[in-house]
Amino acid sequence: MYTLHYAAGAASFAPHWLLIELGVEHQLVRVDLSAGEHKQPAYLKLNPNGVVPTLLVDGQPMWEAAAILLCVAARHRERGLAPEVGTLEHMTYLQWMVHLTNTLQPAFIGWFYPERLAGQGGDPEAAKAAARERIESGWERIDAALASGQGYLAGSRLLAVDFMATMLMRWSRNMPRPATEWPAIRDYVSRMKTLPSFRLLYEREGLTEWA
Amino acid sequence: MYTLHYAAGAASFAPHWLLIELGVEHQLVRVDLSAGEHKQPAYLKLNPNGVVPTLLVDGQPMWEAAAILLCVAARHRERGLAPEVGTLEHMTYLQWMVHLTNTLQPAFIGWFYPERLAGQGGDPEAAKAAARERIESGWERIDAALASGQGYLAGSRLLAVDFMATMLMRWSRNMPRPATEWPAIRDYVSRMKTLPSFRLLYEREGLTEWA
Repeated sequence: MYTLHYAAGAASFAPHWLLIELGVEHQLVRVDLSAGEHKQPAYLKLNPNGVVPTLLVDGQPMWEAAAILLCVAARHRERGLAPEVGTLEHMTYLQWMVHLTNTLQPAFIGWFYPERLAGQGGDPEAAKAAARERIESGWERIDAALASGQGYLAGSRLLAVDFMATMLMRWSRNMPRPATEWPAIRDYVSRMKTLPSFRLLYEREGLTEWA
Repeated sequence: MYTLHYAAGAASFAPHWLLIELGVEHQLVRVDLSAGEHKQPAYLKLNPNGVVPTLLVDGQPMWEAAAILLCVAARHRERGLAPEVGTLEHMTYLQWMVHLTNTLQPAFIGWFYPERLAGQGGDPEAAKAAARERIESGWERIDAALASGQGYLAGSRLLAVDFMATMLMRWSRNMPRPATEWPAIRDYVSRMKTLPSFRLLYEREGLTEWA
C-alpha cells in the first residue's frame, strides 16, 4: 500500500503521475508548504530533508522523487514503465534519471532559491543567472537526445524517467526561455500531455498552469 | 564487455571499485584531465557532458557514476551488490543513491568550483562557504542514518551505494571538517577500507592519499 505525501506541482508531481499511470492503489496526504508543515517534527520524522515527496510503502518511508520513480516502476515492472535489466534501454533510462536529478534538479534550486547557492553575503542575481545557464544547457542536451532518439527519453516507449523529465520541463514554464522553446522538447511535452494520467494528475493536484 | 573511461580519484572511482569488487572483466581507459582530453570531440561523442566516468557496455556508452553503479550492480545481481526489488533494502538503496548524487555530489561542485555556482561577478568565497554547509549537513544526516542502521547505508550488507558514499566521503578529506570527523562515518569508512577491492583500486588508479 502506497501513501504519497505531496504538494501541488512540487517534486511529488512525477511520483504522483507514475502512481496514476500505473493504476495502483494509493492514498494522498497533502503537505501544506505555506504553513511550513514540511519542517514540523512529524514530517521530519518521515523525511529528515524536510521536502516533498515522501512515499510510504506499507508504512515504511522513502524520499527523493527519482528514487521513488525507480523503485515503484520496478515493483510493477509488468506495467512496462521500467526497462528490463541488461538492455540498452535500461542503461539509458538510469543515465537520464540520474542526470536529471543531479544536474537539472539542483540547477532549479539555484533558479528558485539563488540565495542558497550564492551563500551569505553573496550575489543571488549572479547565482540565478548561472543557474539559468545550467538549466538551458541541460535542455540543449536533452533536446539533442530527443531529436536523435525514438520518441521518448530512453527509447521508443514511455518509461518512468519521462515523468521526471516532464516535471522538470514544467518547472521552467515561467523562465525567460522555457524548455518548450527547444523543438524536440516541445513535441515530446505535447505527447506527454495527451496521456489521460496527465489530466487526472492535474485534477487531483488542482493544477491549471501549463495544462 | 565493460570499458571504463576514468581519471584517478574522480567520479569514476566508485564505478571502478564496483567492477573490481564484482570481479567482472573490464578494460580501463585513462582520461587525461590535465590535458583536457575530456573536452575533446572524441570523448564528447561518448559523453556530451565532458566529464568522467563513461562506461561502455558492449560498445554502448553510458554516463553518470550513480547510474553506472545501479546498472552494473543490477546486471550482476547474483553477486549480491544490488538488492531485490520489493524489499525495504531496495527502497533505502535507491533513496540514498539518489540523495548522494543529487545533494552531496552537486555540493562538492560548489566546493571545488565555487565560481560555477556563484556566477559571473558573484562571490566564489560565499558560494564555497554555502557549499561547505550543505556538505556538512549531508554528513550529519548520513552519520545519523549509519548510527541507527545496521552497518551499511541500506542495511546490514555491502551494496553498490556504499561505493558511492565512500567516494564522496573521500572527496572531503582535505576539507576543514572531513566526513570522518563524524563517528559513525569514521567506523563505516574504516570498514570499507578493509575490502581487498579497495586496495586493488588504489593500486590500479595509482592513488595514495586517504589510504
